[in-house]
Amino acid sequence: MTQTARIAVIGLGSMGYGMAQSCLKAGHTTYGYDIMPAQMEKFQSEGGAIGALDDIAGSLDCAVIVVLNAAQTEAVLFGEGGLASKMSANSVVVACATVPPEFARDMEARCAQHGILYLDAPISGGSLKAANGALSVMASGTSAAFERARPMLDATSQSVFELGDAAGAGSAMKAVNQLLAGVHIAAMAEALTFGMTQGVTPEKFVEVISQCAGTSWMLENRAPHIVDGDYTPRSQVNIWPKDLGIVLDIAKSAKFSAPITAAAMQQYLAAAGMGFGTEDDAAVAKVYARNAGLTLPGDA
Amino acid sequence: MTQTARIAVIGLGSMGYGMAQSCLKAGHTTYGYDIMPAQMEKFQSEGGAIGALDDIAGSLDCAVIVVLNAAQTEAVLFGEGGLASKMSANSVVVACATVPPEFARDMEARCAQHGILYLDAPISGGSLKAANGALSVMASGTSAAFERARPMLDATSQSVFELGDAAGAGSAMKAVNQLLAGVHIAAMAEALTFGMTQGVTPEKFVEVISQCAGTSWMLENRAPHIVDGDYTPRSQVNIWPKDLGIVLDIAKSAKFSAPITAAAMQQYLAAAGMGFGTEDDAAVAKVYARNAGLTLPGDA
Repeated sequence: MTQTARIAVIGLGSMGYGMAQSCLKAGHTTYGYDIMPAQMEKFQSEGGAIGALDDIAGSLDCAVIVVLNAAQTEAVLFGEGGLASKMSANSVVVACATVPPEFARDMEARCAQHGILYLDAPISGGSLKAANGALSVMASGTSAAFERARPMLDATSQSVFELGDAAGAGSAMKAVNQLLAGVHIAAMAEALTFGMTQGVTPEKFVEVISQCAGTSWMLENRAPHIVDGDYTPRSQVNIWPKDLGIVLDIAKSAKFSAPITAAAMQQYLAAAGMGFGTEDDAAVAKVYARNAGLTLPGDA
Repeated sequence: MTQTARIAVIGLGSMGYGMAQSCLKAGHTTYGYDIMPAQMEKFQSEGGAIGALDDIAGSLDCAVIVVLNAAQTEAVLFGEGGLASKMSANSVVVACATVPPEFARDMEARCAQHGILYLDAPISGGSLKAANGALSVMASGTSAAFERARPMLDATSQSVFELGDAAGAGSAMKAVNQLLAGVHIAAMAEALTFGMTQGVTPEKFVEVISQCAGTSWMLENRAPHIVDGDYTPRSQVNIWPKDLGIVLDIAKSAKFSAPITAAAMQQYLAAAGMGFGTEDDAAVAKVYARNAGLTLPGDA
């Protein structure tokens, strides 16, 4: 018998919307909130529960915060009319944004002052997996927080990595993953365009390298976008100055030299500077192409 | 019915020795040559054919050159007493070292002047796959060169990517693969040690990241060496200053800016400079560990 929970998803972007849909599908009473009214109305038309957040906050089992960064997460919880003062004791906040581990520890402590549980739970997998309940979650928090969040985790995730009994460990692992994911996309773009200078077509690149030791999860996922000349954003270029910025900030605090991450960061900044910030992150290849005078598939 | 060929493998290092064994296993008459007599004697004791290269060169179907670089390849073919002047017309040279595409085109042309076929055939997969006849080969050359090399390719390879009808394309794809493979090993080391500064253990890193979007073929292959503190060289640190050096030389000639490759190169140079050149290439992690004051598994 499935436990029916009362869940609110704060932030109905590409990830949050899919997670809210997955909660609905699993039979939970699910509210969805976003700064864009159209997103909320769309979700309500698909079966989302209706009610002002102020009115229903006290009745929630779980509030899932799927916003862009630490500042937005803090605003949702502790800004004017923030959730923390409205949720009931022992309800749980599930915080999914990529944030510094230290920030997650701080949020956990401040929520505890309100008697609220906190799960440090960054997510990975993209919007399609969010909508299909197949995300990976890198989670840490008390066993009580895990227990209270379980219906939501079951509804949205294929894999939940339980990384420790306090906030911070989940965000640390997410930062490690983002370091690699960001570097691998940019390295794929570097290799694909380097190959073009030597007569290796993007098609041949994908065909051969995806079967060789040079492959990566990100290469197999993103390189086809370049082959197709399709930069519809599944995940935007703009994500990477943010996420690699978090990685490099943490690294700086730890006096950790991360030269490859720093090099990749410059390429994403150049992509954003060239005006490709809201395109699919595979558009980092356009930086290399412009620098080398190459024409990518689909370009004029 | 298997066609029995007369094959010589020049260079019985970790890759060449395994390839020679695979040719033997497939029933071909196989000679093995190396500057280290012990390697030749070992191969002969396992069934390798016996005879001076000068004496048997004219009777070969195929000479496989598995040496370190372009200079050694050229010396084998065109140095004093080189093979090119001794092999018979329409026999084939299979050149497996990682070399610049331009060099491969030059070798093909010079072999053609001697009436000899040339297959530009860099290999990928490591010594274990070499010994098991399961290499990947990125090959280009005339159809006649492919045809003559087929028994050797069948004996040593699981996948033969046929990349074009002239030398150069094989080496270009290999350079692309090495760019990514070298970057991915160093990025893995960067992420693993970065994680350690945030409380992510190497074991947990492998367990979680290998199942997430941050994974790569190289991460899954090399990160366990760091977890085990085992730097027995399957592939040495010293390979990377050589192979990324080729990539960066080609890139420079093409006026191609490759900042991530360049950053990775510095880390391998530092690893070699610290005295880890002949260790497994996962030892690039020691550069990060020393820079950050971290202790890797197995370290004192």
